[in-house]
Amino acid sequence: MNRSITKPTILPGFMELLPAEQIAFNQMLDTIRFNFERYGFIPLDTPTIEKAEVLLAKGGGETEKQIYRFTKGDNDLALRFDLTVPLARYVAQHFQELTFPFRRYHIGKVFRGERNQKGRFREFYQCDIDIIGWNKLSLINDAEIPAIIYSTFKRLGFESFTIRINNRKLLNGFFDSLGIQNNSGVLRVIDKLDKIGLAAVRQELEESGITGAALEALLKFIGIKGANAEILAVLQEYPIDNAEFQEGLRELSEVVWYIKCFDVPEANVAIDLTIARGLDYYTGTVYETILNDHPGLGSVCSGGRYDNLAGFYTKQQLPGVGISIGLTRLFYQIQAAEIIKFNNAATLTQVLVIPMGVGIEEAIKVANRLRESGIIAESYFEEAKLEKKISYAHKLGIPYVVFIGEDELKKGLLSLKTMATGEQSALNIEEIIEKINHNLR
Amino acid sequence: MNRSITKPTILPGFMELLPAEQIAFNQMLDTIRFNFERYGFIPLDTPTIEKAEVLLAKGGGETEKQIYRFTKGDNDLALRFDLTVPLARYVAQHFQELTFPFRRYHIGKVFRGERNQKGRFREFYQCDIDIIGWNKLSLINDAEIPAIIYSTFKRLGFESFTIRINNRKLLNGFFDSLGIQNNSGVLRVIDKLDKIGLAAVRQELEESGITGAALEALLKFIGIKGANAEILAVLQEYPIDNAEFQEGLRELSEVVWYIKCFDVPEANVAIDLTIARGLDYYTGTVYETILNDHPGLGSVCSGGRYDNLAGFYTKQQLPGVGISIGLTRLFYQIQAAEIIKFNNAATLTQVLVIPMGVGIEEAIKVANRLRESGIIAESYFEEAKLEKKISYAHKLGIPYVVFIGEDELKKGLLSLKTMATGEQSALNIEEIIEKINHNLR
Repeated sequence: MNRSITKPTILPGFMELLPAEQIAFNQMLDTIRFNFERYGFIPLDTPTIEKAEVLLAKGGGETEKQIYRFTKGDNDLALRFDLTVPLARYVAQHFQELTFPFRRYHIGKVFRGERNQKGRFREFYQCDIDIIGWNKLSLINDAEIPAIIYSTFKRLGFESFTIRINNRKLLNGFFDSLGIQNNSGVLRVIDKLDKIGLAAVRQELEESGITGAALEALLKFIGIKGANAEILAVLQEYPIDNAEFQEGLRELSEVVWYIKCFDVPEANVAIDLTIARGLDYYTGTVYETILNDHPGLGSVCSGGRYDNLAGFYTKQQLPGVGISIGLTRLFYQIQAAEIIKFNNAATLTQVLVIPMGVGIEEAIKVANRLRESGIIAESYFEEAKLEKKISYAHKLGIPYVVFIGEDELKKGLLSLKTMATGEQSALNIEEIIEKINHNLR
Repeated sequence: MNRSITKPTILPGFMELLPAEQIAFNQMLDTIRFNFERYGFIPLDTPTIEKAEVLLAKGGGETEKQIYRFTKGDNDLALRFDLTVPLARYVAQHFQELTFPFRRYHIGKVFRGERNQKGRFREFYQCDIDIIGWNKLSLINDAEIPAIIYSTFKRLGFESFTIRINNRKLLNGFFDSLGIQNNSGVLRVIDKLDKIGLAAVRQELEESGITGAALEALLKFIGIKGANAEILAVLQEYPIDNAEFQEGLRELSEVVWYIKCFDVPEANVAIDLTIARGLDYYTGTVYETILNDHPGLGSVCSGGRYDNLAGFYTKQQLPGVGISIGLTRLFYQIQAAEIIKFNNAATLTQVLVIPMGVGIEEAIKVANRLRESGIIAESYFEEAKLEKKISYAHKLGIPYVVFIGEDELKKGLLSLKTMATGEQSALNIEEIIEKINHNLR
């Protein structure tokens, strides 16, 4: 056929994986999902396309520039750019049918038409958990969220990571006590401490009009370091007569204490007074998660407490606390820095059944029997030389091959080859199942 | 705050589920995935957004009208409207890094901006498996695909369904032997037999210019009914000297025979000479799947063999065979017709831990211990009356509640309530774990 060929490519900023990578990625997704479910979070799935006016109800800023927005017929449409706005819309829309506290997880793709740059994706997976209360929500939930993140990261295979925790009320109260008006401006500057260093923070603060005693007090405050108990002790003694500061301090102390009850080791949780997160969203506890050996990657899992989830969609007060893992970016970072070693198999198959000089029917029967025993099995049906059939198993990383030969079949035997060692033995089907199940589980 | 409220709604044609439904939907997704993986299919995930020129390489027709297409910056973009075009693009793009036969499954959302009508979705899940060969692909794969569909539908809980099978070569050869030119026009008409009936098919065929002996022969042919062996016997005796017909017949016979080798009961597979599927895509075996008690739903799972998957993207010949389940529509139909009964729980949680007159710490510890034993557990942290706490478990459908009271705790006991019976007993934590694991697994 003399057909014109379109070059098969995808757009930059969109992640697409080869089989071995995809399997590793899915195992991470499964681990996250398993762990979210273990804590009683229920799954949620919302449309990828929503009404633009709904997704942009909050309006303004970066979001509007990044969003994929288009029309179809009379409809003004957009692709979701996070999973929090759809959650707010969902809870506001369905609250009469939901039970509170509403504990949901959502693992799905979100879309941001950012300028293309390394490590930035335009389409990526977010893995979110949130707990939404009706009018109010116990502070203990603020401790459960990092406990879930701790166990999730452990199960994902991360060795050394720190969940950094802070409280916005503490910061706001402290700024107020110094007479600082521009809270969000100051937050934005100190949030950059890790990136730009103390000298640059001092300079930026000065440029924003904070000088003299207030500046020194601020720099001293964000310089408070130590074990959690030490930081809390210093803060307890801080001479600040401000109700919001005191409430933030009480919350932070309580959350840190409850995190301990959840069996999270102290080494994995650190109060960090420079963490602020976002600007107009969080109202209490805030979290970031840092891989200790790769601090340059920044936070790989962030979130916090908000007073009111869905104010743009309902007058009902819906406080909540939640956190999000940006899995696509994290996966890319893990691969690039080889932070976790993945199995390189490009298949899930555990046994390849190869017929040799007998009918394919036997191969089908043997593969059926293996599958009934919970083993992932496939048969090689193509006409090919033996070495090509074995090479299929080898290239994909299938750990076992079963050969079905006429002579052995007469004795009720099959030939099992362990690909890693080359070892080959004549066994009956039940012996094969036992051996494989024993070795693979 | 005096903030304007945007009404929280989604667009028509987009499915969004409440928790109990979402859990049932996800269980179906999981079952399908588990079964696809059991047969050695590897997962694939492609971008939701692709270049419009790539997705529309084939061009023309309904697709172009339905597709969501838009620009962002200089890019002409579109949302995928099926999973087959992305597969073709993926294989053409990456074939040097893939091992053939390439067995992949893909479960994901696709997008079609159809006119809104009942049962039609603009965003829906497809669950696809395909096996792609390098230059050629054994016919036995055409038998494995319906075997996988059979076991998948059984595991999904469908009682009575038929996988209908036919072969396009058989049809084309037969039409040729009658001197019929407009093969695809005829296919389109006989494909409608189930919907419009024989009289209407006769009339449409006449209007398309097929009359006299050819018309009678055609109607007689599509009227051949019976068990598979009977139909094949009739076709063997059919006096047709046409190579394509004979090849189609040989293929159909072989595929039906191998399906039997895969342990698919005869009752679930029926040769149906009226099945044609699509128009310019399939070249050999074709499948449809009908729920016997709900024939009006049409095919719930369809597919077939194609000679060349990726001709728009590469000159490499890539034959394949595959099938697709449109899960969103199927789920909607199952719900509406109550074809499968779902559990109504709006949660995955198996135990709710309620602290009573003791510190929350104890509840956290007990829930931790339950989770370590593989039980999905959550604690009720909110301040509320006891009846409200129990009502939370009741509304969600949590099967067990554990109360932690001060007096019992001193004796090392907890109180386990079985919600279905109201039965309550004082047990230690290990006894509780044993009882719940015994009852729930």
